[in-house]
Amino acid sequence: MQTARFIRFNYVLTALLLLVMMASGANAKDLASWQDTASRQAIVDFVKKVTKKSSPDFVPEAERIAVFDNDGTLWAEQPIYFQLVFALDRIKQLAPQHPEWKTTQPYASILKGDIKGALAGGDAALMKIITVTHTGMSTDEFAASVSAWLASAKHPKTGQPYNKMIYQPMLELLEYLRKNGFKTFIVSGGGIDFMRVFAEDAYGIPPEQVVGSSQEVKYSVINGVPTLTKLSGSPFIDDKAGKPVGIYQHIGRRPIFAAGNSDGDYQMLEWTTAGKGARFGLIVHHTDAEREWAYDRKSPIGELDKGLTDAPAKGWLLVDMKNDWKVIYPFEKKK
Amino acid sequence: MQTARFIRFNYVLTALLLLVMMASGANAKDLASWQDTASRQAIVDFVKKVTKKSSPDFVPEAERIAVFDNDGTLWAEQPIYFQLVFALDRIKQLAPQHPEWKTTQPYASILKGDIKGALAGGDAALMKIITVTHTGMSTDEFAASVSAWLASAKHPKTGQPYNKMIYQPMLELLEYLRKNGFKTFIVSGGGIDFMRVFAEDAYGIPPEQVVGSSQEVKYSVINGVPTLTKLSGSPFIDDKAGKPVGIYQHIGRRPIFAAGNSDGDYQMLEWTTAGKGARFGLIVHHTDAEREWAYDRKSPIGELDKGLTDAPAKGWLLVDMKNDWKVIYPFEKKK
Repeated sequence: MQTARFIRFNYVLTALLLLVMMASGANAKDLASWQDTASRQAIVDFVKKVTKKSSPDFVPEAERIAVFDNDGTLWAEQPIYFQLVFALDRIKQLAPQHPEWKTTQPYASILKGDIKGALAGGDAALMKIITVTHTGMSTDEFAASVSAWLASAKHPKTGQPYNKMIYQPMLELLEYLRKNGFKTFIVSGGGIDFMRVFAEDAYGIPPEQVVGSSQEVKYSVINGVPTLTKLSGSPFIDDKAGKPVGIYQHIGRRPIFAAGNSDGDYQMLEWTTAGKGARFGLIVHHTDAEREWAYDRKSPIGELDKGLTDAPAKGWLLVDMKNDWKVIYPFEKKK
Repeated sequence: MQTARFIRFNYVLTALLLLVMMASGANAKDLASWQDTASRQAIVDFVKKVTKKSSPDFVPEAERIAVFDNDGTLWAEQPIYFQLVFALDRIKQLAPQHPEWKTTQPYASILKGDIKGALAGGDAALMKIITVTHTGMSTDEFAASVSAWLASAKHPKTGQPYNKMIYQPMLELLEYLRKNGFKTFIVSGGGIDFMRVFAEDAYGIPPEQVVGSSQEVKYSVINGVPTLTKLSGSPFIDDKAGKPVGIYQHIGRRPIFAAGNSDGDYQMLEWTTAGKGARFGLIVHHTDAEREWAYDRKSPIGELDKGLTDAPAKGWLLVDMKNDWKVIYPFEKKK
């Protein structure tokens, strides 16, 4: 009986410990790659106050919507946006079917490896690059081309596949929020169907919780097969003032938590944190030239100028990658 | 000890019973308003085979996407679409601010109560009605106008608020699917932000799982207040071939279960059931002139012609409201 009592006592103790851990809103395992700084504390404090039933800031689970930018917030974006790398690689792959590209811009520059030259054509050149790589095929064919690229392409600096260059502390933040009843969404300027190919595996975010830029799609039955075809023309750009619009059209309610890293996220943070009740705005500030990249106000990719200036007055948390994060990428942990 | 053993035995028995009930996929409480006909059995059989791990048709939870049309599938749609009733009522309400409407069509006819006359102007008249009632205001103002209408308007036949004219058997079907790990979505030709006002309360479907027709929205800061304004122009029509497109853009994966009631749902059913593996297509056939309405091939509202012809060959279940459903509306149950 002594043994039985001891076992029972241990069960009770374990249960009590679990309750204490649940009540504290975070345990040692949560946000493990975050340094024990004010940034981590601010996140934990916010989650505590919106999830505690007796708190004046309590938010019902259904309304715990958290939105995350992707480029520079969940995965890296240097030296150029990864989706652009996909498009450039895809042009090289498709070139044999387009002999005319050897003498037409921006393709000719791309095929010579002169990316700067290719992009010198500005928005018009970019639109051509996107059109030939992202439209004129079925949605299944497009997804397959993204999958194949992710499986083979490697980042020039780290030698890692692009979908491994995701931020470990942000993965833990997503997980921590979900554990506390949040529904996590991506709201990115990137292509909605580009991101959906890897978002579930990389971030635990299912396709239906990915919001992004999109192009028209047409439904038709081709040789008896129902098919969705990606078209060019009238794209929706889910960036800047487009982000609150994307949130409204896809999610239909205002988030209580928003995370971004550039001025492209300014309006999303503004819209989110202007709502009534407790709100949280977070900006990932790229301060780590050694482990990642250091850039903000003057960067052509991921420019953070207005957001950096206004963050203190707006009450947005500036996460300092260098000092707030123990590791950057998951593959560092495994070393 | 005898008592303790008996209690323990009872626990084991209860646990076993629960397991048996879970394994059977349905218990007596599920789909309680469905008659014990082949229709109910077909639904239960499908859910069993996609949720049983050892089944060759097993579908992982994340892929258990079920889509439902709204008008005529989840709520009634006679004598005219309820959203159109909202628009007409709203025009009467706004008329004092628009003295010119007394002499301009289609408003003049609406104000005289001549709906037929108002709609005689075809698509152009309809577009005017939608524009003045659905655009040019903030998204919050629009939602408030829908809420106020739902709280006051009554259906001419039943005297019930419109959001009470929902189908009890379909509510049970939604619940049954969710209980079995499905994520339930609305995919309707109705306005996305019109439906979101009541979908969570009426159907247990949160705003982010409502797909519908939409208009452009613009984000701006007005007198310091971040605001989303509804614009007219370039609407997305989530009907017919637009439904698979809406599903792709919002959900990003092909459903395995689709329910509709009219030819507006044909392509959604076609797209859903053309996918690999087990799929289910369901058409609510309005056959009950006494308790609801009886209409199909010749109805100007909710026309079901091609779908009715093709359902047997496509393997889509035709639900016979009169013979398959014990009750139509929740308020009948409470009588």
